[in-house]
Amino acid sequence: MKSVIEIEEYLHKHIPLTHAMQIGVELVLPEKVQLSAPFEPNINHRNTIFGGSASTLAITSGWSLVHFRLQNEGFNCRVVIQKNSMTYDRPIFGDFQAICELNDEKIWKRFTKILAAKGKARIKLESTLVYKNETVGSLAGEFVAIAL
Amino acid sequence: MKSVIEIEEYLHKHIPLTHAMQIGVELVLPEKVQLSAPFEPNINHRNTIFGGSASTLAITSGWSLVHFRLQNEGFNCRVVIQKNSMTYDRPIFGDFQAICELNDEKIWKRFTKILAAKGKARIKLESTLVYKNETVGSLAGEFVAIAL
Repeated sequence: MKSVIEIEEYLHKHIPLTHAMQIGVELVLPEKVQLSAPFEPNINHRNTIFGGSASTLAITSGWSLVHFRLQNEGFNCRVVIQKNSMTYDRPIFGDFQAICELNDEKIWKRFTKILAAKGKARIKLESTLVYKNETVGSLAGEFVAIAL
Repeated sequence: MKSVIEIEEYLHKHIPLTHAMQIGVELVLPEKVQLSAPFEPNINHRNTIFGGSASTLAITSGWSLVHFRLQNEGFNCRVVIQKNSMTYDRPIFGDFQAICELNDEKIWKRFTKILAAKGKARIKLESTLVYKNETVGSLAGEFVAIAL
């Protein structure tokens, strides 16, 4: 996989909103992506984290896992989000994280097998929002990869 | 209701992400909020609109309808998003809009009646993402108002 620094630079350069949010890339493994965002650029009128920022960090963690892992495995394709559900369980009062983990390798294998065979495949991923080591929200996202 | 200019200034001042996205307020009525966002600050690596930006504009349209209408009706409360589902139906290649409409006044009446009686109430709203007058995505959001 690319380094966390390369991935952070890529995001900030190509997706300006990730730069505005000052998204940090903490960890990128084939089965796990962990992103962070600082408080100040992501506050709302009540001095908690804005729902749009929470949603965006979670989406970006899932998208990054699919995009950078596919790239690492030699696929040339575009990855887009098709749908997602978010729950915002608790207010977030400071810097926070989104962690996307793929716990079942079989899901990935099936996804890439279909992508290789048909040029298009979809995968469901979950991301967790974390504040002070506690889960404060979650995303279930469905991403589609389309071969170029 | 406050004017569109007052509301745009409020959003940009208190929610920095709306400023970074250059969200514009086009229409604010008790039963309809229409927001816009320009292409450049909201692009992704494929030069279409980033899913995080699409999601955030839709969330902001729903939140704005609840927040500013409650304020206009004299309620002193905070409004937060509790959950949402998003579908991203088509790529967006330029400036886009989010339109939140409340078509059933009975839903609002019930919402404010419960809020007045219990100090807390929830409401479900739908927003539509529009690009070149076509629907390109939608949000179903659940918002909670809590009296202060």
